[in-house]
Order: sequence, then C-alpha cells, then structure tokens
Amino acid sequence: MILAIDVGGTKMAAGLVAPDGAVITSRRAATPQNADAETLWHTLATLIDPLSARAEGVGVGCGGPMTWPDGEVSPLNIPGWRGFPLRARLAGRFPGLPVRLHNDAICLAIAEHWQGAGQGSADMLGMVVSTGVGGGLILGGRLVNGGTGNAGHIGHVVVEPDGGPRCGCGGHGCLEAIARGPALTAWALTQGWTPAAVSEPMEASEGGEASEGPAAYLEDRAVTGRALAADALAGDPMAVLAMRRAGRALGIAIASATHLCDLDLVTIGGGLSQAGEPLFGPLEEALRDHARMGFARRLKVVPAALGQEAGLVGAAALLLAGGAYWTSSRD
Amino acid sequence: MILAIDVGGTKMAAGLVAPDGAVITSRRAATPQNADAETLWHTLATLIDPLSARAEGVGVGCGGPMTWPDGEVSPLNIPGWRGFPLRARLAGRFPGLPVRLHNDAICLAIAEHWQGAGQGSADMLGMVVSTGVGGGLILGGRLVNGGTGNAGHIGHVVVEPDGGPRCGCGGHGCLEAIARGPALTAWALTQGWTPAAVSEPMEASEGGEASEGPAAYLEDRAVTGRALAADALAGDPMAVLAMRRAGRALGIAIASATHLCDLDLVTIGGGLSQAGEPLFGPLEEALRDHARMGFARRLKVVPAALGQEAGLVGAAALLLAGGAYWTSSRD
Repeated sequence: MILAIDVGGTKMAAGLVAPDGAVITSRRAATPQNADAETLWHTLATLIDPLSARAEGVGVGCGGPMTWPDGEVSPLNIPGWRGFPLRARLAGRFPGLPVRLHNDAICLAIAEHWQGAGQGSADMLGMVVSTGVGGGLILGGRLVNGGTGNAGHIGHVVVEPDGGPRCGCGGHGCLEAIARGPALTAWALTQGWTPAAVSEPMEASEGGEASEGPAAYLEDRAVTGRALAADALAGDPMAVLAMRRAGRALGIAIASATHLCDLDLVTIGGGLSQAGEPLFGPLEEALRDHARMGFARRLKVVPAALGQEAGLVGAAALLLAGGAYWTSSRD
Repeated sequence: MILAIDVGGTKMAAGLVAPDGAVITSRRAATPQNADAETLWHTLATLIDPLSARAEGVGVGCGGPMTWPDGEVSPLNIPGWRGFPLRARLAGRFPGLPVRLHNDAICLAIAEHWQGAGQGSADMLGMVVSTGVGGGLILGGRLVNGGTGNAGHIGHVVVEPDGGPRCGCGGHGCLEAIARGPALTAWALTQGWTPAAVSEPMEASEGGEASEGPAAYLEDRAVTGRALAADALAGDPMAVLAMRRAGRALGIAIASATHLCDLDLVTIGGGLSQAGEPLFGPLEEALRDHARMGFARRLKVVPAALGQEAGLVGAAALLLAGGAYWTSSRD
C-alpha cells in the first residue's frame, strides 16, 4: 500500500492507494494560511500519521516550484515553505521506505494517463486549469521530466505576445495569464458578469454576504473559475464570452504543443474543465485553426476523467507504476 | 562505414561516415526539378552507387512529411515523390543492411547533439531556419520522435495568433510563416531592402541581370535568407529590421518550447543563423521577455556548429549512435 500525499495552497490530502490505483482511504486538512514551515509540517504530519502503519512507500505531489528529484519545495501558494526539504523530512519519518515527490500538475497528468482519460495514449499532455494552468507531458509512454523536473509547463506557453496580460511568472501573454480561474473571473466581472452564486439567494449563503462591485466579488469565494464555468453552462452570456476567451487561448497553446511534441491526446482537468461546450467549442475552433499539420489531425482534447482524488492516484503512481513515471535514479 | 544520404528539394547528398562521425567522402547532385518518382530515384541511385561497396548500414535524412519509421516520403519541395517508399527501395538495394530514415531537420538536430554545439546537453531543441523552419527535440539525452515521428516541429508553434501571416501548413501566425527565408526576404523587400548582392556589381553576376522592383528580386537567387543575413551583418538598416522581426518570432517560440520541455539548449542552423548579433540580439531580448520561469534561465541559444555536412552526420548517427537517436524497433 502506498501512502499518497497531495499538498496544495488550499488543502493537504493524504490517502492509502492500492497497487491497482484504488484509493482505499483518504483524509484532508486545510493548509494553514500564513503559517511558518514547522506549523505546515505539523499539519501534514498529523494528517498522515493515522495512515502510516500500512505504508510501503510514499508518493507526493506538491505545488511547484521545487528542486527535483531532491524535493526541496517552494510552492507559490505556500509562502511558509521556501526551500523546505519535504522529501527529506518524509524520508526521515519513514526510514527505509522509498519517498518520491513530483510537481502536483505532473501527478495529475500521470493519474489521467495511468487510470483516467489518458489510458492507452502514448503521447499526451495532461493539463489542469484551475488557480493556475499546469501540465505534465508523457511522450513515448513515459513521463518527460525535463532537465530540472519542470517539463509540462503549458501555462507559460505564449498565446498573446503583443499586449497580452502580465503573468505571475514575470512574462506576459502566457496561457496562464489569460485562462487561470482568477484572471478569467476578474476579466468576466469587468465585462459585466454577475455570478449566479451571488445573485441567486439559494447559493449566496455559501459565498457569504453579497456586496456591490467587482472588487467585492473578487473576494467572494463563490467567484471562482468553477462558478464561471457553471454559469457558462447555464447560458449566462458574459460567462460564455469568458469561456470563449479561455478556450481560444487554450486552443492556441495546445496547437503549439501538439506541433512541437506530436501529441495524440490532451486531457483537461480543474474547475474550468467543467464548462463543457462553452469552453471546449471555442477551444476546438482555435485548435483546428492553428493545428494544421497532417500529423496534428489525430489529436483529441478531452476532459480529465478522475475527480478530486486524482492527485493522490498520480502521487502513488510514482511508485506503483514507476517504470513509466519515475526515471530518476533517486528513490 | 555508414552510407549517409541527405535528400532535399534543391540537392541530394551522399557520403561515407566513419564510426567517430567523420565524413570520409561525400558527393552531391542537384535534385531534378519537376521530375517524376523514378527519375528522382535514378538520380539518387547514381549518386550513391560509387559509395555502396563499403556501406555497412544506410542512414537517411529526407524532407518531410513522411510516414515514420516506415519511410514513405512526400517531401513538400519534391512534388514527384508522394508516398514514395524510399526506405523500402533502399532496403531492396542493400539487402541485409539496416536502413534508417528520419526527417532532415531531425537529422540536423541529432548531428548537433552528437558532434556539434549540442554535445553534452541533455535537453535540447536543434533548429534550422532556412527555406522552412524545422527542428528536432532531444530530451533526457534521447531523440523524441512523437507518435508519428513528427516531434520537433517548432516552425509551427504559434507566435502571432492575431492577424499573423498565413502559413504553408494552412494555419496562420506560425513561426515559419514569419521567419522562413522566403517570407522574411519578401517582407524585407516590401520594407525597401535592396539586396547588396544585386546592388553591388561584383556579385550581381551570380544573381543574373538585376531588374526593377520586388517581384524581380524575388526570382533572383541572390535574394535569400543568407543574403539578407549578410546584409544585416553589414549594417543594412532594412535587413537589420528584418532580422529583428525574425529574431523576435524565434525568441517567442523558443520561450514557449523551453517552458513546455524544460530545455537547457537551443541550437540554430541554416542560412539565417549566419546573421549573428542582428538576429541573436532581438532573439535573446524576446526570449528573456517571455521565458521568465526560474528553470528557463539556464537556457542557452547558440548557432549550430556543423556546416553543410551536418545532414549526413545526423543521418549516419541514426545507426552509429542509435541507442540515443533510434528508438523504433524497425531497422
């Protein structure tokens, strides 16, 4: 049984995963905000302790950046960990067991390839469109790490070089700068989108008291990419426009990736991927407009198949299917 | 000794390559224009026959597209070959010898990695900027083929999605549509470039009688990317502008490729790469503007080191260093 761990800026999850990829049990905890390194570690340790007895190996997905395969992590959304030796700390807690750690977006791609919508694909990009836009690249049936473990950063493929929005990476016109949930909802609000979760009393309670104006919405937890996707699916015209904007950017980036890597499949997970046709329609249109080489015609773009436990499944696969997904000599 | 063959739209080359990559002897012939399949084959056969006796294997680089690894070729610039079974024909001529064939741009990338500017790089893109813009991708020290042998098509990464020029592939805004020699010289002529090879009497003879206007220049063999590069190096302001345009497009595409594949090196060969600072300056500027992720900082972009025999060296490497560059089960 593999102890799988998924560390993100909002939550931490841990679970036991069987050799066939089934998640036997799992637990979750909120990631302490503004916490120091040891507080964060304590939260994680408390989460995994009840699962430790049956662990025969430890697989971890964590937000990047990180050094890889050493696993010193500095997750963008967890300021308390900067160069935190997560792999080494876990190795100390589980003496004699292999501990393997990779980028969380890469773990999601691995999960889709191993157990989800990517099964049987030889050359795929597994994407996640959420607070950020990330991915993992599987070519010739094996995970591509790149020189520093950072291959798959589709979010920083350039899709709008002239006057594109500033990106968190310091560049501009990156896919992520346009299609990440917060950027897209902010754009939708400027276009006049009124989130249904705020305007409809039944769901407003979840988001807290509704107040006026975009700034107020932006602090509202109902104003998420997922909410925008739901509104688009329900036909809200401004949400549909926002999905068109995201879909077009995704289609351009995927066309570039397909030409460069000769892919047969792209899977898209994360909140935005729930939008269905309002997202995937414009995505396909931009993709077919730009991916014109004959070999790119076979490419399929599909929603990710696995749910919220995908991160655990992918982390476990670093050990359970390590021949395909773990090429480092380090355990 | 490997019989290496390099088939392009303008010329065919063949040579004998020693195990250490040295080209022992080589021959060239003009590719017959508007010729049928058998005439083309006859030209190639005549070229290789004097070299055949010492061949222990045959490596071929050929313009794409092609089916790979089967090696039925349909080079864009050789209309007489459409689905021509080049690999099978060569196998028939050399019974018992292994015959391996790949895209010519991929062979150039292999050559740079094996013997040129890419030696020691684990994760590189070898590019050629010439009549077209192509490339080959080497990740983790091994050639990436992609599902159909077409990985490395950096020329069709999108760099100008809005209103970018129409590309030969049917798309628009591709790197190749902007930076390929003919597109760039045509653009330079519209900007008022007067090719030095035409304006200076000493070299005009090579290009034939100079006549008036861009249309005449375009038919002039002196009006090439190489001539444009030379003029830019000599300080011609319009040629410098054209190099800036190409360099910027290259920098954007390379930034995208670096983020997606976590590269440490890009080599650039072909006529345009002779431009030096007028090309590489704007390229670096656009690259550093867009490639902002920490892991992308280590990327170096350098001119290719090998000359006109690089294609033969890369074709030979399909056999001489096949562990890294030939992953198909087909010989």
